[in-house]
Amino acid sequence: MLRIGQGVDFHLLVEGRDLWLGGVKIPYEKGSLGHSDADVLLHAICDAMLGALALGDIGLHFPNNAPEYKGIDSKVLLQETVDKIWEKGYHVVNIDSTICLEAPKVKPYINHMQLVIASILKIGLDDVSIKATTTETMDAIGRGEGLSASAIVLLQRNMEG
Amino acid sequence: MLRIGQGVDFHLLVEGRDLWLGGVKIPYEKGSLGHSDADVLLHAICDAMLGALALGDIGLHFPNNAPEYKGIDSKVLLQETVDKIWEKGYHVVNIDSTICLEAPKVKPYINHMQLVIASILKIGLDDVSIKATTTETMDAIGRGEGLSASAIVLLQRNMEG
Amino acid sequence: MLRIGQGVDFHLLVEGRDLWLGGVKIPYEKGSLGHSDADVLLHAICDAMLGALALGDIGLHFPNNAPEYKGIDSKVLLQETVDKIWEKGYHVVNIDSTICLEAPKVKPYINHMQLVIASILKIGLDDVSIKATTTETMDAIGRGEGLSASAIVLLQRNMEG
Repeated sequence: MLRIGQGVDFHLLVEGRDLWLGGVKIPYEKGSLGHSDADVLLHAICDAMLGALALGDIGLHFPNNAPEYKGIDSKVLLQETVDKIWEKGYHVVNIDSTICLEAPKVKPYINHMQLVIASILKIGLDDVSIKATTTETMDAIGRGEGLSASAIVLLQRNMEG
Repeated sequence: MLRIGQGVDFHLLVEGRDLWLGGVKIPYEKGSLGHSDADVLLHAICDAMLGALALGDIGLHFPNNAPEYKGIDSKVLLQETVDKIWEKGYHVVNIDSTICLEAPKVKPYINHMQLVIASILKIGLDDVSIKATTTETMDAIGRGEGLSASAIVLLQRNMEG
Repeated sequence: MLRIGQGVDFHLLVEGRDLWLGGVKIPYEKGSLGHSDADVLLHAICDAMLGALALGDIGLHFPNNAPEYKGIDSKVLLQETVDKIWEKGYHVVNIDSTICLEAPKVKPYINHMQLVIASILKIGLDDVSIKATTTETMDAIGRGEGLSASAIVLLQRNMEG
């Protein structure tokens, strides 16, 4: 049995914060604002996995006013999320995602992000796709004020072909 | 045989209108502007179902200048849409969706929305996922001027494993 | 074995350019700005196909600073993309997509776009869905300054049920 999920996340980019994307810290003059490390890609992937099994969303499982999640590494949230998927008897077939931001260029970091995500989800590098685009200067993301990520995931119940 | 579909919809939020989301009327000072009840989530789900079978889009089937759809309850549109899916010999495996809005908080209404949608589509509550996010104050949706919803759906042909 | 992919693309609309959408030239006072013909729908579909197999993104395969892609017909990029999918032993089950723009109305051109895309991908017309929506006047796309397209694709490995 197969299931699909989707996720989307937004964060503002501000000075004085680190830029975490796909579990990787990217050198840049600004970083994502949020209660956790504000990793927009990992959050979109968590939401897609939760959504595929109708387990709620990231805000339900990891409230952004809970002290235990303040400044937390989103890789921990991804691990806790995939644990829930496994407990339900499913595994990830593949993930596809897109980061939408004006700057910096993230291409040099894509392979590292794939490695981080694939390791946590125990899937192949070829099962984690991360793409990037700009909005061609349109709106807040085009002005570099923020960034977004979207992801879709295909899950399959264990013990199937 | 499996098929996937996606849908996205946008509406402005204005005073003097009711806020319908996922078939549920939510108390709020503003509501969605549109020809029908402007239920952005049900419209995104209708579009995803139509798209999965290449049946056109919601604007084709329910034109926003047709008198018979003025002020119509979008649950009727959802029912007519799933009727088309069933006629083609398919059923819904699962739906995942995200409402994107600044306010109000929709979490208290999610379960009710799931119940409404699952009842019409004749699927389980666990087969309808509804998530919510903000744009972190970015752009028109972040200023509360409007809202959007996106959905994906997995369909399967009847009489298959 | 099934795989899913998603793609999104944005372009500005400016005077002095042709408007190419889904491989079809649409009469309009403005056109999409870009290095190639800037066909936002074909680019979203290319990205979805590449993403489903984690083959990178359109910017990696067809760099927007490469002289050989200057002004190129995006149907060539779609052909090169599906060739990569076929080489990997997969075929397209179905595509669903949404064009998001304020004007012009694209409905009269949808059937032609389906025909173009289905011919290149060697799939049925019913396996290519193209929908359209506006942002209800919100933000840059709502002001007619640009347009976007999103697509999802379901791929299946050859020699399977």
